[in-house]
Amino acid sequence: MDALRLADLRHKLIRQEETIIFAFIERAQFKLNPVIYEAGAIPLPEFDGCFSDFMLHETEKVHARFRRYTSPDEHPFFDGLPQPILPSMDYSQPIKPNHININARIQQVYQEEILPAICNPGDCQNYGSSATCDVACLQALSKRIHYGKFIAEAKFQANPESYSELIRQRDEAGLMELLTDKAVEAKLLERVELKAATYGREPGAKDENPQDCKVRPRAIADIYKQWIIPLTREVEAAYLLERLD
Amino acid sequence: MDALRLADLRHKLIRQEETIIFAFIERAQFKLNPVIYEAGAIPLPEFDGCFSDFMLHETEKVHARFRRYTSPDEHPFFDGLPQPILPSMDYSQPIKPNHININARIQQVYQEEILPAICNPGDCQNYGSSATCDVACLQALSKRIHYGKFIAEAKFQANPESYSELIRQRDEAGLMELLTDKAVEAKLLERVELKAATYGREPGAKDENPQDCKVRPRAIADIYKQWIIPLTREVEAAYLLERLD
Repeated sequence: MDALRLADLRHKLIRQEETIIFAFIERAQFKLNPVIYEAGAIPLPEFDGCFSDFMLHETEKVHARFRRYTSPDEHPFFDGLPQPILPSMDYSQPIKPNHININARIQQVYQEEILPAICNPGDCQNYGSSATCDVACLQALSKRIHYGKFIAEAKFQANPESYSELIRQRDEAGLMELLTDKAVEAKLLERVELKAATYGREPGAKDENPQDCKVRPRAIADIYKQWIIPLTREVEAAYLLERLD
Repeated sequence: MDALRLADLRHKLIRQEETIIFAFIERAQFKLNPVIYEAGAIPLPEFDGCFSDFMLHETEKVHARFRRYTSPDEHPFFDGLPQPILPSMDYSQPIKPNHININARIQQVYQEEILPAICNPGDCQNYGSSATCDVACLQALSKRIHYGKFIAEAKFQANPESYSELIRQRDEAGLMELLTDKAVEAKLLERVELKAATYGREPGAKDENPQDCKVRPRAIADIYKQWIIPLTREVEAAYLLERLD
């Protein structure tokens, strides 16, 4: 395995903040449209789930053929996707092979917690557009949260003795604590709120009316605090617990 | 047909600037990757075009099933797409039915002019990611440029006599002139450059190093000036020339 530098990974996570915030701002153009998250509410051919999941599944079928899920930093939401039509790329393998995938949990958090925080309630009938935006949001969230595997590997490499000890003792609480860097997190939350405020507001607008924001900056920082950071850490811990197997 | 107010449409075009700029910034993460625009360079099953077009075609097949192209403000790049699996929505019909679609031209301009202006040259191997971003860029450009139909209808309704006269005389140059509002365009270009600078730079960064920009703000304003505005006006004129048929 190649050596991983935490500083390089942090740089990638910072760039992924744009992708996530842009995706949220795009989704927030449309109302919540709850009907697209109710299985059976919109009849779909040969699909049991809801409209938004159907769009995600169909998109994943396309992306799977383009070998998206052969990359170690991509994780599908659905099983049984088609085989790639392209020969596999020779990816470097900076992390240990594993099957950790918490997309089911990410999808639940997205629909139940994140969407109500970023969208206005109600139905604007833009079901297809909303579902297309959902795909972008979910893919960005999944990539960011599963990046925890790379982060965990880098942290392990920087401090193999302490991590190995906690892993051997199956000390999850201890692992969580060692993985946590309060100063980095505080800086992240501040930066994300600033980005959300900057990207979600008409630049050069004279008055600072919070109603002009395309999304509430505080809501996006809260999503990071309550969901994205803890779920990333869950992935980090899960990866480390398998690290010595 | 419902009445169209130019002010409402302008508001939508301004919002679409975010979608376009976000899509460009996302694409600019990756190098140009010219191989994905060369037909035959990457062997594809049962598809004659290039890798990026194949991704676009596969995505359009999915979106067509979700009735995307039954909406009067959406235009496919490919013919022969599958039928929608959902019953058609009852869209309001604010414009005259027409078959104007300049996506072939948009695709050519995107690949030949826009991509080299926003991406660093070279090959970074992220072909699937680049092609996924291309889909978002092309869809955003197509929507914006074909919005010219709505703009043209609103301008016609606001001044039916002058437009009808020019249309009857098939006076394209006169139409182009009447459609042009230099003051609005100058304001747009200024706004787009400011947005590109704001969204493409790390907010709160201390130094104003232009190399830190995710895209060159001037490049995006130039794309609007050289391509997006003229192509939109082309659509406006084409729509008006059919308006009285």
